[in-house]
Amino acid sequence: MQAFGNLNRDELINRKNKLSEEYENYKKQGLKLDMSRGKPCTEQLDLSNGLFDDVQNLFSVDGTDCRNYGLLDGIKEAKELFAELFNINTDEIFIGGNSSLNLMYDLIAKAFNHGLNGFEKPWSKLEKIKFLCPCPGYDRHFAITQLFGMEMIIVPMNSDGPDIDMIENLVSNDDSIKGMWSIPMYSNPSGITYSDDVVKRLANMKTKASDFIIMWDNAYGIHHLNDTPDSLLNIISECRKAGNPNRAYMFGSTSKVTLPGAGVAFMASSKENITHIKKQISIQTIGYDKVNMLLHARFLKNPQTVREHMKKHAEIIRPKFEVVHEILDKHLSGKGIAKWNKPNGGYFISLDVLKGCAKRTVSLAKEAGVVLTSAGATFPNGFDPQDSNIRIAPTYPPISELKIAIEILALCVELAALELVLS
Amino acid sequence: MQAFGNLNRDELINRKNKLSEEYENYKKQGLKLDMSRGKPCTEQLDLSNGLFDDVQNLFSVDGTDCRNYGLLDGIKEAKELFAELFNINTDEIFIGGNSSLNLMYDLIAKAFNHGLNGFEKPWSKLEKIKFLCPCPGYDRHFAITQLFGMEMIIVPMNSDGPDIDMIENLVSNDDSIKGMWSIPMYSNPSGITYSDDVVKRLANMKTKASDFIIMWDNAYGIHHLNDTPDSLLNIISECRKAGNPNRAYMFGSTSKVTLPGAGVAFMASSKENITHIKKQISIQTIGYDKVNMLLHARFLKNPQTVREHMKKHAEIIRPKFEVVHEILDKHLSGKGIAKWNKPNGGYFISLDVLKGCAKRTVSLAKEAGVVLTSAGATFPNGFDPQDSNIRIAPTYPPISELKIAIEILALCVELAALELVLS
Repeated sequence: MQAFGNLNRDELINRKNKLSEEYENYKKQGLKLDMSRGKPCTEQLDLSNGLFDDVQNLFSVDGTDCRNYGLLDGIKEAKELFAELFNINTDEIFIGGNSSLNLMYDLIAKAFNHGLNGFEKPWSKLEKIKFLCPCPGYDRHFAITQLFGMEMIIVPMNSDGPDIDMIENLVSNDDSIKGMWSIPMYSNPSGITYSDDVVKRLANMKTKASDFIIMWDNAYGIHHLNDTPDSLLNIISECRKAGNPNRAYMFGSTSKVTLPGAGVAFMASSKENITHIKKQISIQTIGYDKVNMLLHARFLKNPQTVREHMKKHAEIIRPKFEVVHEILDKHLSGKGIAKWNKPNGGYFISLDVLKGCAKRTVSLAKEAGVVLTSAGATFPNGFDPQDSNIRIAPTYPPISELKIAIEILALCVELAALELVLS
Repeated sequence: MQAFGNLNRDELINRKNKLSEEYENYKKQGLKLDMSRGKPCTEQLDLSNGLFDDVQNLFSVDGTDCRNYGLLDGIKEAKELFAELFNINTDEIFIGGNSSLNLMYDLIAKAFNHGLNGFEKPWSKLEKIKFLCPCPGYDRHFAITQLFGMEMIIVPMNSDGPDIDMIENLVSNDDSIKGMWSIPMYSNPSGITYSDDVVKRLANMKTKASDFIIMWDNAYGIHHLNDTPDSLLNIISECRKAGNPNRAYMFGSTSKVTLPGAGVAFMASSKENITHIKKQISIQTIGYDKVNMLLHARFLKNPQTVREHMKKHAEIIRPKFEVVHEILDKHLSGKGIAKWNKPNGGYFISLDVLKGCAKRTVSLAKEAGVVLTSAGATFPNGFDPQDSNIRIAPTYPPISELKIAIEILALCVELAALELVLS
């Protein structure tokens, strides 16, 4: 559809003048609204107030005193809980710290410094390393591969996941492509869940590099928003079935289940991969915080109670997603200047504006007091070649503030589009 | 002194026969006694049972909700507590995770991959990296430098710290020597505290490498055993005064203050170093567990209450050190076959047996059911060139078990020595 349909130049100018006036009025209000990061709101945090209710004894079910040293890979009940939730075996899991991002960084660093299971040599000994980056994607992923000096290759996201034809073609021909990022369920920010076909092809594809790894960031694997959730195949077992058992490393955490500032993170992969990396991690630390693992396992109990707990999260944040959709629908639909997704889970709404308008939109919003994730952040090196994608993180602000913020955002989207078509 | 003084061969053989009989009797008892690691005992852990008493609100004094994302370098009250305890500034401190070992590993990994503040290039880009290792030392330190493929140079420990003449000479002539390990207070295992002179010379010495760093593992900085504690100069301020402000990185944790399995760790250095590394760590994680920092700051309160808390630890473990000394004195003193230290703090007693007898002693003890730290573990690559040093970790076992274990150890020391002199 053409931008602004059949409006003629005068009509567009009138529209721009009217919106500019509204915009100036917003600016005068001196608002300070932050939608930059996917942070849970206070009501969500309060759902986990019971975390510290059961601290009378800090012994694990197997008799381990969680207060003392020991158990590098985590306590029994925490492993069992994550294993059940994600349908993996307890010997395919490593529980470590409060940050899955840290586990991902560590894995990449170890691939560089020491090599992972099955590597011929560490990546640091190679001339050139390339990594596939489905886009739009997560800025913190790309920051890691950027820090390690990798060349990042943008792979477009389709409605069923990243362009799998392109991926298969790339990895079969170039042995310097060593891995790919992915958020396979309710992807950040597009909300897309990888189809069964895409997961199977990722597990089965021939890679020229024998040390190709899939960074499977299952950050939103249980973070459904409604009663029609997406479903995702298990990459660990698909890789095993495909005869590529050591290809995928899955990551997750309770950051958006319990407390972002004090959760429990885990990594899962083949038993062989986990055994190998445990040896490396044993040099790095004596062990992670077992008391926090224990409190989490006791509070979250079992998969059923976790799912009930996640429904309470959904009840708090679903109305926020709905507000965003309503306001965007009201102001932007049918104008041919923006499109956005309506995900069944996760933490983001991905907004695509006219090519060349994302930076301007975000900048206009900022001047009016609405802080969004930087335009470009969803692409490697912070550069969106289309300058089109904007990430909306609706969970943190109260609904009253969110409404104003999205009204302003919608206005800025249209204003930037008008500036473009009138230029 | 000559081994076994003036005993003639027949007397030695008689003695050996007598001890062998005692040894066989111990073996028959099927004992299982573990003195391999410096673990606090249960009574010590119980001192921190109040950690979770105050969880009603989880907001920091500055209003930060510790449950949510944010504050990469730690919360205000935790920084202030560590800063006061170790006489550093709050902007010279980074609080991260539960493991100071992990912070050390991370620092070395970053020096390799990205370079630290002031580095011309990352160490991974250099042909050869050497690291100074005062010995006997901590096996986990040496395991890190071993993993990164560094050449480790043994520096002997004197009664005032590592041989500073040797260090000055080495670092002034060889720019591939990039750093040194140290446990400057109640060193593991020798119990030695670096003298003011040694600290000042470390801070002031000319190093050929401009990227030379001191890994200052202040693990036992507040872990006194009695009322005549050692004292240690502040390396951070000494380096600043010397015009080498970015040379030292200090590490510490509450692992042996509160809970080894769930403590809080920190790193301190110049403000410039901390600012630099914070940028690197911001790629690695959004933040460490702030709730645990908050619970720790509330429980430990202030330097005075921390010192009182540490006295309670001392009351529990000092008798264990005394038992070891009594038994070693009783069986081994005056025989010229072993010497050991009587530290004013820390977690270890370092036992030096006749050259060539450490492995045999540890092995004999193991057969009789007493597990000690492997002989050689206190040297790089697990190899003690003298085969003489044994690390005793007396804190974990109950006194009744400890007594038997040390009786057996003393017996094995003498038996191994007799085997040697009679061979």
